Amino acid sequence: MLEELKQEVYKANMQLPRLDLVTFTWGNVSGIDRDKGLFVIKPSGVDYDKLTPDDMVVVDLDGNVVEGKLNPSSDTPTHTVLYNKFPNIGGIVHTHSPWAVAFASAGVDVPALNTTHADTFYGPVPVSDPLSKEEIEDAYEENTGKVIARTFKERGIDEDAVPAVLVNQHGPFTWGATPDKAVYNAKVLEVAAEMDYHALQLAGHEQIGVPQYLLDKHYYRKHGKNAYYGQDNAQSQSHAKRK
Amino acid sequence: MLEELKQEVYKANMQLPRLDLVTFTWGNVSGIDRDKGLFVIKPSGVDYDKLTPDDMVVVDLDGNVVEGKLNPSSDTPTHTVLYNKFPNIGGIVHTHSPWAVAFASAGVDVPALNTTHADTFYGPVPVSDPLSKEEIEDAYEENTGKVIARTFKERGIDEDAVPAVLVNQHGPFTWGATPDKAVYNAKVLEVAAEMDYHALQLAGHEQIGVPQYLLDKHYYRKHGKNAYYGQDNAQSQSHAKRK
Amino acid sequence: MLEELKQEVYKANMQLPRLDLVTFTWGNVSGIDRDKGLFVIKPSGVDYDKLTPDDMVVVDLDGNVVEGKLNPSSDTPTHTVLYNKFPNIGGIVHTHSPWAVAFASAGVDVPALNTTHADTFYGPVPVSDPLSKEEIEDAYEENTGKVIARTFKERGIDEDAVPAVLVNQHGPFTWGATPDKAVYNAKVLEVAAEMDYHALQLAGHEQIGVPQYLLDKHYYRKHGKNAYYGQDNAQSQSHAKRK
Amino acid sequence: MLEELKQEVYKANMQLPRLDLVTFTWGNVSGIDRDKGLFVIKPSGVDYDKLTPDDMVVVDLDGNVVEGKLNPSSDTPTHTVLYNKFPNIGGIVHTHSPWAVAFASAGVDVPALNTTHADTFYGPVPVSDPLSKEEIEDAYEENTGKVIARTFKERGIDEDAVPAVLVNQHGPFTWGATPDKAVYNAKVLEVAAEMDYHALQLAGHEQIGVPQYLLDKHYYRKHGKNAYYGQDNAQSQSHAKRK
Repeated sequence: MLEELKQEVYKANMQLPRLDLVTFTWGNVSGIDRDKGLFVIKPSGVDYDKLTPDDMVVVDLDGNVVEGKLNPSSDTPTHTVLYNKFPNIGGIVHTHSPWAVAFASAGVDVPALNTTHADTFYGPVPVSDPLSKEEIEDAYEENTGKVIARTFKERGIDEDAVPAVLVNQHGPFTWGATPDKAVYNAKVLEVAAEMDYHALQLAGHEQIGVPQYLLDKHYYRKHGKNAYYGQDNAQSQSHAKRK
Repeated sequence: MLEELKQEVYKANMQLPRLDLVTFTWGNVSGIDRDKGLFVIKPSGVDYDKLTPDDMVVVDLDGNVVEGKLNPSSDTPTHTVLYNKFPNIGGIVHTHSPWAVAFASAGVDVPALNTTHADTFYGPVPVSDPLSKEEIEDAYEENTGKVIARTFKERGIDEDAVPAVLVNQHGPFTWGATPDKAVYNAKVLEVAAEMDYHALQLAGHEQIGVPQYLLDKHYYRKHGKNAYYGQDNAQSQSHAKRK
Repeated sequence: MLEELKQEVYKANMQLPRLDLVTFTWGNVSGIDRDKGLFVIKPSGVDYDKLTPDDMVVVDLDGNVVEGKLNPSSDTPTHTVLYNKFPNIGGIVHTHSPWAVAFASAGVDVPALNTTHADTFYGPVPVSDPLSKEEIEDAYEENTGKVIARTFKERGIDEDAVPAVLVNQHGPFTWGATPDKAVYNAKVLEVAAEMDYHALQLAGHEQIGVPQYLLDKHYYRKHGKNAYYGQDNAQSQSHAKRK
Repeated sequence: MLEELKQEVYKANMQLPRLDLVTFTWGNVSGIDRDKGLFVIKPSGVDYDKLTPDDMVVVDLDGNVVEGKLNPSSDTPTHTVLYNKFPNIGGIVHTHSPWAVAFASAGVDVPALNTTHADTFYGPVPVSDPLSKEEIEDAYEENTGKVIARTFKERGIDEDAVPAVLVNQHGPFTWGATPDKAVYNAKVLEVAAEMDYHALQLAGHEQIGVPQYLLDKHYYRKHGKNAYYGQDNAQSQSHAKRK
């Protein structure tokens, strides 16, 4: 069942230790087949060096396991909510990467201070609202997903343009069109958080931040119909002047 | 004598350099056989790449070497006290890992600022009381163990729920049900200290810290009779909804 | 066409990940053949582990692609301007290395605080003027090159003596007599930025900085007709006293 | 000539990149044969991966090259002065390791804040006096050695008990009984500087620092006639209680 997607999700999970985004088993990637309404996710608490594609667990959009001998990630209900709330996303990543967690612990957004950030995130990466006592005590992981979606709605943030969040006092969730792109976004967030931390210590929060037109330029250089970065975007060929 | 435990302690020691927790020979792991009242510990000042299981030294609960051609770790009297004072622990680790030592040098607890911390430590990891001049000059390593135990008693901290301490101006000791779990706790402490340092610089000590209910949720998600993280905990199976 | 230069530029590009200067594809190196008026540059958005010398793109000094099946780096117009404005340089590097980007994000020059800096950069590495809205919206990459050249002119900085800049809110460009030397300068800048960040936190910007005579000593120890560092400089032999 | 010492110095040099103490060629190790009055030092500006034992250069205590086809390190006159001024030392290391250089750039001693420091350095590692304009312009490297020796004399520091210095706005020199021990001290200094930086940010310079009795305990646990750490010290055997 979904053998190709299992391979894809497995490979995306294995990128996490290679990109220095996880310690021990503290991370998980999922990917969805929108036609079938099923997603594939890493099992809970399994070491990366023992993981195989066969260990992946298949879950439906109500959060029920439909295939898999192991228990799915304990964060499965969060993934379920996000796939339901964010209709365009095809993959989700959760890690405890240390720079992103530092911002989450401090309750501080990762601000847009440079083009590295703007290339991927069209604005600050928000810290979610804190979960209430009730939201934590019952259906915690499901409520985590709901609070993420609520935060994006309240703050008017487009989840496709800012594919990342810091769950308050917890850590990052990122997403994307595919599991691979969600992993890419997890790494960009970690690097951006590292750069921002040092920039904020050098200059202070009020004094710095990219202007809207620089954010526009860099974000749309890599996204949308006028993107011209790389080999495959719509305008890549025409942008390279040829005699 | 205790060949299996020697293998286990040897392997746990070899995890320290792999997890980037030691420079040179600055770390040691021990593990105890509670039935026999004997523990096995790394020899003093031996390079990790020359260490063999046979080099491990067997010590009794009075601190006497009962087997081993090499001298045991100079911290052996600290291990001896901790095994006597903390009846449930099966392994102990000491390192000079740099983030934990930074907090120990500053005399600052590693506070509970996020779920990474709460997953393992049920509250702040305390800095021990400083040792007095007398405690340092005579029976120093033994007194180190006594001061750790005293600090936990005075502050009302349960050593099984917070399996780590920062010895003032020195560095971390961690423990656990097995040598392996003590090593795991040593790594979590180092990562938590790194995250906390940056969070404190971003937001200040007074303003942040997880609420009790988030601490409860994450700690008990991984510990005790209602734990549901991973494949083996009591509630893991029932937590994964299956059709 | 320019096979030797393609090899040289390819190898210089492959140094970037080895020196920990790039994440993903965020970096590029070019090298010029001044006689032919052509430069060779990395293609846009290609993974380093898939890159081959044949993928290199040949561009003329008007910015037209004259050979190459792939699109050149999206930063090609910046390289074109720099080769036109800075007549002595033979290679250019752009990265998003994190310490340099932190200073660029904060809009703070990398000051000359130590001999590591002075050995390579004869004064602070400047942050460029910010690009205006108009400069960003149209011909952005070309204007990036123009603003770099303008910053050096306005501030009276000799680009051969300070072969590096931080583009405001973006990141570093470095250059040198060859692609290899430009890569070397990119690494020195990253290391100097790391050292400077910590020194500034320890002591404050106003209180520290090398005096002119120390800058002179170290810069000219490695550059110009009286250089005596290494095996090949003019004065190296005479500087080593021999009986 | 001095083939064994060349091997020893070569191996000690090769430890520097393995211990993450050098970037490019920015480091050198020497070792002395006190009986012959000759020392062996790395050649100037040679890549570590091309270095061979045969490349080592032999120098006398007047700083004259007596054997070697390559030019010796440009820092040779500093080594010469130190071997003359510090009669007990057998090896010297110079690096540009980033944490030590950060303290040197800020003009701040690396204070004794923890036992990691106290195990090796019997007090703060001093920043040298700055060199004057005259001292820099003429016989710079020789004067660097003289200023180091003068700083130790003025501040009453015993070079055998504190085998390291930070040359102001430059970087660390360390030494020891052998080239290997000098390399060991270079690594300890780098680690101690990293720990101290973070501790100082957490707690402030005035509030922290080990008391004299803790410094005594840890330093003499590893040094002198009562040392008991490791397998070879005088008291190691008697310290391990045996039934």
